[in-house]
Amino acid sequence: MNEKILRSEEALEIYEQIREMPIFDVHTHLRYKKPCMSNAWDLLSYHYFTEIAHSMGFSLDEVKDSEEGVKKIFEHLPAMRTTAPYFWLEQIAKKLFDCDIRDWREFYERVEQNVSSGDWMKKVIETSHIERIALTNNPWESFEGIDKELFFPTFRADPLLKFDNRVVKDTFEETESFLEERMNYFIGYGCKAVAISPPDDFVYIPSASRNNSALKEAALSANAKEKNEVRSSLLSILAALCREKKLPFEIMFGSVRDIYKRCVPEGGDFSRANTSLLDIADIFNDNPEVIFPLSIVSFTNDQELAEFARLFANVYASGHWWFTNTESAIESSLKKRLEVSPYKKHIGYYSDAYTMELIWAKFDFYRRVESNVFADLVREKRLTVDEAVEIIRIRDYETPKRIFS
Amino acid sequence: MNEKILRSEEALEIYEQIREMPIFDVHTHLRYKKPCMSNAWDLLSYHYFTEIAHSMGFSLDEVKDSEEGVKKIFEHLPAMRTTAPYFWLEQIAKKLFDCDIRDWREFYERVEQNVSSGDWMKKVIETSHIERIALTNNPWESFEGIDKELFFPTFRADPLLKFDNRVVKDTFEETESFLEERMNYFIGYGCKAVAISPPDDFVYIPSASRNNSALKEAALSANAKEKNEVRSSLLSILAALCREKKLPFEIMFGSVRDIYKRCVPEGGDFSRANTSLLDIADIFNDNPEVIFPLSIVSFTNDQELAEFARLFANVYASGHWWFTNTESAIESSLKKRLEVSPYKKHIGYYSDAYTMELIWAKFDFYRRVESNVFADLVREKRLTVDEAVEIIRIRDYETPKRIFS
Amino acid sequence: MNEKILRSEEALEIYEQIREMPIFDVHTHLRYKKPCMSNAWDLLSYHYFTEIAHSMGFSLDEVKDSEEGVKKIFEHLPAMRTTAPYFWLEQIAKKLFDCDIRDWREFYERVEQNVSSGDWMKKVIETSHIERIALTNNPWESFEGIDKELFFPTFRADPLLKFDNRVVKDTFEETESFLEERMNYFIGYGCKAVAISPPDDFVYIPSASRNNSALKEAALSANAKEKNEVRSSLLSILAALCREKKLPFEIMFGSVRDIYKRCVPEGGDFSRANTSLLDIADIFNDNPEVIFPLSIVSFTNDQELAEFARLFANVYASGHWWFTNTESAIESSLKKRLEVSPYKKHIGYYSDAYTMELIWAKFDFYRRVESNVFADLVREKRLTVDEAVEIIRIRDYETPKRIFS
Repeated sequence: MNEKILRSEEALEIYEQIREMPIFDVHTHLRYKKPCMSNAWDLLSYHYFTEIAHSMGFSLDEVKDSEEGVKKIFEHLPAMRTTAPYFWLEQIAKKLFDCDIRDWREFYERVEQNVSSGDWMKKVIETSHIERIALTNNPWESFEGIDKELFFPTFRADPLLKFDNRVVKDTFEETESFLEERMNYFIGYGCKAVAISPPDDFVYIPSASRNNSALKEAALSANAKEKNEVRSSLLSILAALCREKKLPFEIMFGSVRDIYKRCVPEGGDFSRANTSLLDIADIFNDNPEVIFPLSIVSFTNDQELAEFARLFANVYASGHWWFTNTESAIESSLKKRLEVSPYKKHIGYYSDAYTMELIWAKFDFYRRVESNVFADLVREKRLTVDEAVEIIRIRDYETPKRIFS
Repeated sequence: MNEKILRSEEALEIYEQIREMPIFDVHTHLRYKKPCMSNAWDLLSYHYFTEIAHSMGFSLDEVKDSEEGVKKIFEHLPAMRTTAPYFWLEQIAKKLFDCDIRDWREFYERVEQNVSSGDWMKKVIETSHIERIALTNNPWESFEGIDKELFFPTFRADPLLKFDNRVVKDTFEETESFLEERMNYFIGYGCKAVAISPPDDFVYIPSASRNNSALKEAALSANAKEKNEVRSSLLSILAALCREKKLPFEIMFGSVRDIYKRCVPEGGDFSRANTSLLDIADIFNDNPEVIFPLSIVSFTNDQELAEFARLFANVYASGHWWFTNTESAIESSLKKRLEVSPYKKHIGYYSDAYTMELIWAKFDFYRRVESNVFADLVREKRLTVDEAVEIIRIRDYETPKRIFS
Repeated sequence: MNEKILRSEEALEIYEQIREMPIFDVHTHLRYKKPCMSNAWDLLSYHYFTEIAHSMGFSLDEVKDSEEGVKKIFEHLPAMRTTAPYFWLEQIAKKLFDCDIRDWREFYERVEQNVSSGDWMKKVIETSHIERIALTNNPWESFEGIDKELFFPTFRADPLLKFDNRVVKDTFEETESFLEERMNYFIGYGCKAVAISPPDDFVYIPSASRNNSALKEAALSANAKEKNEVRSSLLSILAALCREKKLPFEIMFGSVRDIYKRCVPEGGDFSRANTSLLDIADIFNDNPEVIFPLSIVSFTNDQELAEFARLFANVYASGHWWFTNTESAIESSLKKRLEVSPYKKHIGYYSDAYTMELIWAKFDFYRRVESNVFADLVREKRLTVDEAVEIIRIRDYETPKRIFS
């Protein structure tokens, strides 16, 4: 067995028991029509790789075809070898393609050979022990031909708070009707959640009035308070629909978009160190019947997240997102969650993956770190290995499955 | 010996030498007339347990009597088993009641049997090696019949900054006179400190003018600056009295009250991730002759706290409060304090306990974590075990005793 | 071999291979005319020692001569023994003066004997394996007699943002000419960098207009926005000169000056917990051709720093500064950097030393902690020892040498 990351005998023992646990993945960006890779560049053009390479001089302008893309990224791989994405890639190569990542051409060809076989997706699902996968979808998307056994849509409402006129109508009433109609369509295809990543300057204002004339001008307005009022009203509409339709409402807090101007696509977003979850706490007060899986992207909110799961009956601490999806960040955030809040209020992990091949790699990385953390509790005689495994099973599988079913 | 939490031979060796050290507890919420439990519900109705249970569906409405309360909380205990409060409970059960916490009725009855014996408090004190205990008292409290050998009051001034008219009079002069009179009364009963947990929107303004008409309106005013001015003046009065009476002035920084609206009693308070101790730094500048034991509730202030103890001659880094009173939070904050500031500027720990039975459990938890941290220094050949034990004794016992005597 | 701090066999093995690596120190405060100690007080009057002693009652008023200074600081040393400065002092005593720090007089005399020998500096350089040293210099400094083989100046521009009239002239044009003239003078003496530590209230405003009348009044203005505009324009001038002269532009973010009023010299500065690097991100957007080694002083910016190195092609995560130059702070920041960003975007360390004797001590401390961190990666089977050593060499020596040459 590959023992990477696992720090002790106890960690190994725990990992051994959880590594083949089924995956119920509550947040991904897979395309349901083409959920797997077509070639190696599909994986390596993921911004996690291109942005790191870019920071060392790589440019997408150099890339004329997928072979060249892979070759160029591989040139920058050695300098990424302490990062989480490198680990994922190495594991995918080994597990799914039975090769390593020393030679770009070998990797490219191994991928090509494999993914072209007719039952590739089936193989990925079986090897990964994938049970179900949440998609992330714009309100205007359609789902013809979706495999409803495997996938379920998530109603991603970000365009709403960006005042996108594909979802924001002339009045709050019309917007509400439109949202409900679309949500019903989503539910017809098995939708199990609404999700939003609020703009970083958003402060929730409870009981904001529904001023229709402000709604029309919000997109153009420079007035922060007015925008917050309109956004708060729109968010309240969503929350009310969640209550009515009995859907959990995922909140992904703290990302700041489009900071770096010369970035590769999607490589310009950051976290912000000085934010507080308290600025959105009244969303949870105002909607006690809605379950909120809550995610953060900056470690400075780690303690707040644990407190929210400990106190609010309707908030769950969910996953390890983006820049905190790394070994030491998961470890220290997970410890805070376990020490401050009950494990039944956790959704252990989701992959946030763009292709299906990444799901297992990211889950496996997380499970290794989680095994280390629980092994510490075993070594400190606070849990037995069996208890640790049972808690992990509840956090990582049963709770997400219960909430998103 | 129970080896829980202790991570190494060296930690065990250190713990062995400090576990029976006398406890001089500089901050508790004990009631001097009834400092011990009457039954198990007295302990389990503590918000640390009820709020976690509430987050999983528990409601106080279900609780008709103390037996039922205990039974209900016990149903939620398994899901708390990685938290600090669970550890305290388990330790109390074992140490004081010679039982475990698998069966609620057994625990309930074991408590009943023990606490009804006439010398229960004496037994708790002896078993816990308690030397003296600070109380926390509103300015209007009286102390008839207090055991002055064991307890000493703390003048808790929070109502002052809330403009409570039981302490805030018509003018600053009258308020000052009233405070001094009450403080003298407190000192007659052995009061050794003033304490305050400032409102989270408080920013100290040095040399704020004493505007008596603003004072009268502050409670109603929406103007943040005006409120801060009045509060700063009131706080300056307190600090001047501390100087005159030679009392240390405890500042407990960073709690944010009443955020969660549907909470169990006292289960609605949080920390805030984006605050800075610099916003109150001038309190310490303005009162160089007053000693300030300073506590924080958010880990994001850990480094600032260590810096304040390193630079300000009159500031001590004090305890591990509330949501940071957990294993990994203590460990990382303690390391920062030891690396940045001299250990003579530390007050190791206080229990913040509501019943006397909790004091030892919380101190013992802390001492185990502290043993781990110092064991690391021993293993890194920076201290011998004897040096570690000596430093711990100064931090945890001698310094608090010196300052609060 | 002295095994202090080193936590495992693997750490020892790594350290063994890096401990004599040449030092290319990109940030110090050495005086080129007198880079070494004259006596022990030269070292102990460094604010790192005096400020900690001051926090326990030490006053510079007590110090009539250098002997007495050393004696007084030594009285306070035992209480500093868990701090980083204590470790440095202990190591200097042992390595350079072949004594310990139990007896102040012995130390004082051992220093005296050694530093008075004619080839002392040569010995320090050889023992420390020092290759080159960056100085930090005000724009008006001169460099007659500087040893250009060993030292190179850094153009420290802090006075510019303080509106010091020795550098800020009547118009932006005149200021620019003056800066260029001075920078050319610096470059004549081998200057390899511009550096600035922006005021803590600075927020960079892109494309700020160059309003000459605002420039003249900025120093007196209470208007934050106006100040930020003028400062942004001045900073843009510097950045443009960096581009033209191909100099890296070091940004040292987050220090807050002159908070504690009764401090020893330089002992009144703090970090601030609630800041964000996003407030200066547009500096990096606006100057893509300039390389920015970026340093932080608060651990709350750790993740942001790693993200900046991961995304911005022109930003390097640089060193471990001031209050984060401690064991646990280095460890946790370094892990974040390695997990989030590629190691080629790191400048491992600089000493920030005031006398040459401190350089090795601080580098050695850092290298020990770094060895622990990389040993964890070796133990987790993610790197071999050889790979770890190679990465360390690139981070700590090759990259800083390349950028500052």
